[in-house]
Amino acid sequence: MLPRLDLAAVWLAATASVASAQTYRRFGTCPSLGCVIPPDQQDFLPGQEFDIRFEVHAPKNGSEAFNNGVPDEKFTATISKDGGRPRSIAEFFKLRSEPSLEKWTFSWFEDLFAEDAKTPSVVNVASKAYRRVALYEPGIYTVTLNYFSGKKTTAEWTVRPLATKKRAKNVIFFIGDGMTTNMITAARLLAHKTVNGKFQTLLSLDEFPVLGHQMTHSIDTFITDSANSASALYTGHKSTVNAMGVYADTSPDPQDDPKVETIVEMLFRIWGSAWGAVSTAFIADATPIALSGHSRLRSQYGVLIDQALNGVQNYSWTKTDGPDAYFGGGADQFIAGPGSYQGKDYYAEFANKGYSVSLNKTSLLSAPNDKKALGIFCKNNLPVWIDRHIFPENLEINNDPSGAAKPAKDLPGLKEMTLKAVDILHNRGGKEGFFLMSEAASIDKQMHALDYDRALGDLLELDDTIRATIAKLKQLRILDDTLIVVSADHGHGFDVFGSSDTKYFDAQEDERSKRNAIGVYQNSGLSQYTEPKPGVSYGTGANFPMNWDPRYVLAAGVGAAPDRREDFGIGATPRAPTTSRGGEAYVNDKDRPSGFVVNGTLPTSESQGVHSLTDVPVYARGPCQETFGGTYNNIEVFYKIANCLGLAHGRNVTEGAGKSRGNGKGKGRD
Amino acid sequence: MLPRLDLAAVWLAATASVASAQTYRRFGTCPSLGCVIPPDQQDFLPGQEFDIRFEVHAPKNGSEAFNNGVPDEKFTATISKDGGRPRSIAEFFKLRSEPSLEKWTFSWFEDLFAEDAKTPSVVNVASKAYRRVALYEPGIYTVTLNYFSGKKTTAEWTVRPLATKKRAKNVIFFIGDGMTTNMITAARLLAHKTVNGKFQTLLSLDEFPVLGHQMTHSIDTFITDSANSASALYTGHKSTVNAMGVYADTSPDPQDDPKVETIVEMLFRIWGSAWGAVSTAFIADATPIALSGHSRLRSQYGVLIDQALNGVQNYSWTKTDGPDAYFGGGADQFIAGPGSYQGKDYYAEFANKGYSVSLNKTSLLSAPNDKKALGIFCKNNLPVWIDRHIFPENLEINNDPSGAAKPAKDLPGLKEMTLKAVDILHNRGGKEGFFLMSEAASIDKQMHALDYDRALGDLLELDDTIRATIAKLKQLRILDDTLIVVSADHGHGFDVFGSSDTKYFDAQEDERSKRNAIGVYQNSGLSQYTEPKPGVSYGTGANFPMNWDPRYVLAAGVGAAPDRREDFGIGATPRAPTTSRGGEAYVNDKDRPSGFVVNGTLPTSESQGVHSLTDVPVYARGPCQETFGGTYNNIEVFYKIANCLGLAHGRNVTEGAGKSRGNGKGKGRD
Repeated sequence: MLPRLDLAAVWLAATASVASAQTYRRFGTCPSLGCVIPPDQQDFLPGQEFDIRFEVHAPKNGSEAFNNGVPDEKFTATISKDGGRPRSIAEFFKLRSEPSLEKWTFSWFEDLFAEDAKTPSVVNVASKAYRRVALYEPGIYTVTLNYFSGKKTTAEWTVRPLATKKRAKNVIFFIGDGMTTNMITAARLLAHKTVNGKFQTLLSLDEFPVLGHQMTHSIDTFITDSANSASALYTGHKSTVNAMGVYADTSPDPQDDPKVETIVEMLFRIWGSAWGAVSTAFIADATPIALSGHSRLRSQYGVLIDQALNGVQNYSWTKTDGPDAYFGGGADQFIAGPGSYQGKDYYAEFANKGYSVSLNKTSLLSAPNDKKALGIFCKNNLPVWIDRHIFPENLEINNDPSGAAKPAKDLPGLKEMTLKAVDILHNRGGKEGFFLMSEAASIDKQMHALDYDRALGDLLELDDTIRATIAKLKQLRILDDTLIVVSADHGHGFDVFGSSDTKYFDAQEDERSKRNAIGVYQNSGLSQYTEPKPGVSYGTGANFPMNWDPRYVLAAGVGAAPDRREDFGIGATPRAPTTSRGGEAYVNDKDRPSGFVVNGTLPTSESQGVHSLTDVPVYARGPCQETFGGTYNNIEVFYKIANCLGLAHGRNVTEGAGKSRGNGKGKGRD
Repeated sequence: MLPRLDLAAVWLAATASVASAQTYRRFGTCPSLGCVIPPDQQDFLPGQEFDIRFEVHAPKNGSEAFNNGVPDEKFTATISKDGGRPRSIAEFFKLRSEPSLEKWTFSWFEDLFAEDAKTPSVVNVASKAYRRVALYEPGIYTVTLNYFSGKKTTAEWTVRPLATKKRAKNVIFFIGDGMTTNMITAARLLAHKTVNGKFQTLLSLDEFPVLGHQMTHSIDTFITDSANSASALYTGHKSTVNAMGVYADTSPDPQDDPKVETIVEMLFRIWGSAWGAVSTAFIADATPIALSGHSRLRSQYGVLIDQALNGVQNYSWTKTDGPDAYFGGGADQFIAGPGSYQGKDYYAEFANKGYSVSLNKTSLLSAPNDKKALGIFCKNNLPVWIDRHIFPENLEINNDPSGAAKPAKDLPGLKEMTLKAVDILHNRGGKEGFFLMSEAASIDKQMHALDYDRALGDLLELDDTIRATIAKLKQLRILDDTLIVVSADHGHGFDVFGSSDTKYFDAQEDERSKRNAIGVYQNSGLSQYTEPKPGVSYGTGANFPMNWDPRYVLAAGVGAAPDRREDFGIGATPRAPTTSRGGEAYVNDKDRPSGFVVNGTLPTSESQGVHSLTDVPVYARGPCQETFGGTYNNIEVFYKIANCLGLAHGRNVTEGAGKSRGNGKGKGRD
């Protein structure tokens, strides 16, 4: 065997150094023992409220062991603006008193060897948190933490320029969860026909005038999840995997991490506008809930639903009146019981605050447009577009949002939910307009399941929804006042590489021969999904395939997957590529039974596909569209939208503004 | 076993229909028996010269058998503008005579079963070709072929609006062959460091103000190769896999297919500007040679080099004076012998036409800027950036451009070639400016080999070249006159999904355990390629990694691959993932020997990765940059550039214009 590279021989020397820690780290945003949170190089919208935390770490053992594991409890911290005089945090922010000292202990593994050997490194921490402050003047702020008599950690924070003028009355932010350019290309091929290389119709996305790319990485890892990437889009602050609306700290409490104000909190505080969220996921899922959520752990679904309605409860914090329209799945957090916060009935909690509550499409469509509206249409995620339209037999599961043991079948799609939300938000926002986030969640969820057809079906549903929303805005005469942004929160490494002749595939007996059913390059041919098939009619309209199951199907794959079978055709049931044995994922023999086995390249504990690195596209039209071209970090999406909404204020705009609309000055507001 | 879908049961009924043919087709642009080429829905730049061919097919056997295999030799054809009077082709184009009738026979397989059974379908053809015509007036032209007494095939052609004003003096078109957004994201992560989620430096591409997406599909398949996609970018006409500068016909002669004029042919004919091509591939490879090449088969390397120098020889056609700067690999087509056209010495052929000829970097850099310049630096492709800079021992191969059995070591990179080309083209183009295409070819070639590090190294070299080119244009005071476009011709389904701890990977004994060295999401960590490593210094500067071989490497993959081993680290030698046995690709046990085996999802005849479907990014800066936003077909890139160069003329602009500069009126032209 050839050795791995010779120039790798110096590895051993570096192994003991923490700089090489990667799989696990003591604290991703804090390579030193003194931690300023928000850390170095963070940006702020003028007036955006946030918390500050300082931590001093004393590792008891491991490569960083220090001071016998006793942290410095007498650390001090200062802040200065543009090189001016450093002042204590309490003085600078005119706080009435110093916060009390907190102490805790946590442990971590320095690498996979340490984990295998069960030898954690233990760290004792001393900490203070300064809550609910804001920086109003644009400039550079330097925060210095002094600890262990002589050690210093410095963080530079940038407060961006002011932008107090509202250029867009309304913003609709569509998020295709996990949606990449590659998937958009594949969806176009499924639903739109070409003649001699020319598409006869196009995606709605293809008609957007401005295109950009955003970088999705976390604050401390290059692969993100949907919580912290949504949070970056909504707050302008990146965070850590599984966190939203906060910078992660190392404390055991997932609800005490330093918070940052979100776009809808600011929009309500400053302008009193209406806001809403629509998702095909359970509504407590990361992308919708991060609009209002502040938690180190996205899995705290119950608390997060309570925050959406009532705001943060354990600290003084910006409150909204709750969403004006809130539609999706996830009855589990609303039915009184183990899934809901404190076991309470959140249908009742919302109703008590003046919400109409809809549990099916019929009820949704007839809900009044002048009341706040909650619509929860099933347990868990909404069934995907393909199952709703092509395989309705898959709806026969006990997911009724009432909790009754029956299927939820009177289901709205993303389009119905979004159009209804626009009606309500437009009515309730009045002259102050609205912010709506509409998420096609199962692009991601079905990509995780390697069920490309179901993922792309939901992408086409998103595109169809965008088209219908533009028509709706035109009809309401607010298209020109509305900034529409379409983007994603991260990618999956998906692409199409050819077509597969399913007839030939099925006729082959051995696994290698099946692969020869695939046509690449000149043998890829054209999409047969756009050709009518005798006897097949789904009634799904012009923006969807005429035939989801042609003889020649798209051959596609992802860059990383668990062990599984592949046959490239559509599955009659939602895909579950693996089964679990002893915590390890193995090929599910019931999935794609006529396919061939492919061994994966993911950790054997991963039962599904995973997120990928790629920049994702940003489409924009409407006021401020010209600011969305080129390539930028995901936090810039927040700044572009926030500045277009005039949220960057140089003075403390109190909740009074929001209340003014709440008090009846806004048109149609109760 | 579950059956594949029930709704697929009607397959058999459709099988006999040609409409379902996909893997193979009789003629991709002609589903009927009468063929108009260019086919329906093609667009033309006003004044762009092209050939027309009509074919009438009579299949002797198979599902389409017709008229006992006797084609109609008395077919007629007409053309009309905007619904006006149809006229014969000869009358409309004022041709002196009707072309003579041509006849041939070809065969094809209706599907993979027919191929296995060795039962081809045989087609007899009658045809006529009308050569070198042009349409000058914008509008809709309808071409009708009448055949088999009563059958009709109609093609509608659109002549785009005029654009006679030159808005950009110069155009530089950078092509990253096979380069996707996913790869650009990965390259950024390799070379540019983040601190708390913020990149400290960026790619040159990240600073382009305008971004678009282009669709890469062929005229008759959804997956393209580099010949017909380059041709679409250079001519505004999509073609068939392996073809360039022509629409494919079914005749046996690959040099008689109906041609379309390319951007450099028009630019020279109309403005007499200078033009050049630079590539890290052999210069006869598809992307550089399609600027001047007209061939159904990209593999006709010798003929294509002759066309670059002397123009099309077998028909009257637009000629250029040959490229003013022509730099790359591919000595095989220049050394007198079996690889060159008619066995001639093309170094001598170029020299006889006034070219300086450089066979190494030293000679290139000292070549005069006022003479046309040929630079061929090795046989085959240029060694990639990583081998030139990190593993120079891989340069020890017998690839000297003289043909001597010795290594070519005095090699320029893409940057040196491009900057020298700019000097020469600027000098020789004078007031008429220039067009330069600069290709990073081995992004594609190394992606085919699944050698992601080498592919991304060449992507970083491209980015470094773009940065240096912008600086050079600024220094020459022509930055504001120069449209710079950066794009790709197609993608590969690549993405990064995590990091791999190579130390842990190597310490694991079984193949499944090795996969557990991979960290995804919160365990992906940060790029360690940007961290200095004691004792490692490549001297490659700020825009490249500090360490190509960190302990924690990027874990990446493609959506489709042959059988291979994976270990995710950099290879000391260029990668060859498979070996061939009996025409089938199997795992190469010498490649990544410490890795685990992954079985592929490609046809077993494929020894490499393949192209993918995804739209690819377009970056633009300079005059006309605002036209490059949004999503469009690849032919639109041609129209955007051609219109910016004022090439859309409503009258016949003869070669006189070009000759005027050639006769000495152009500054610095010999």
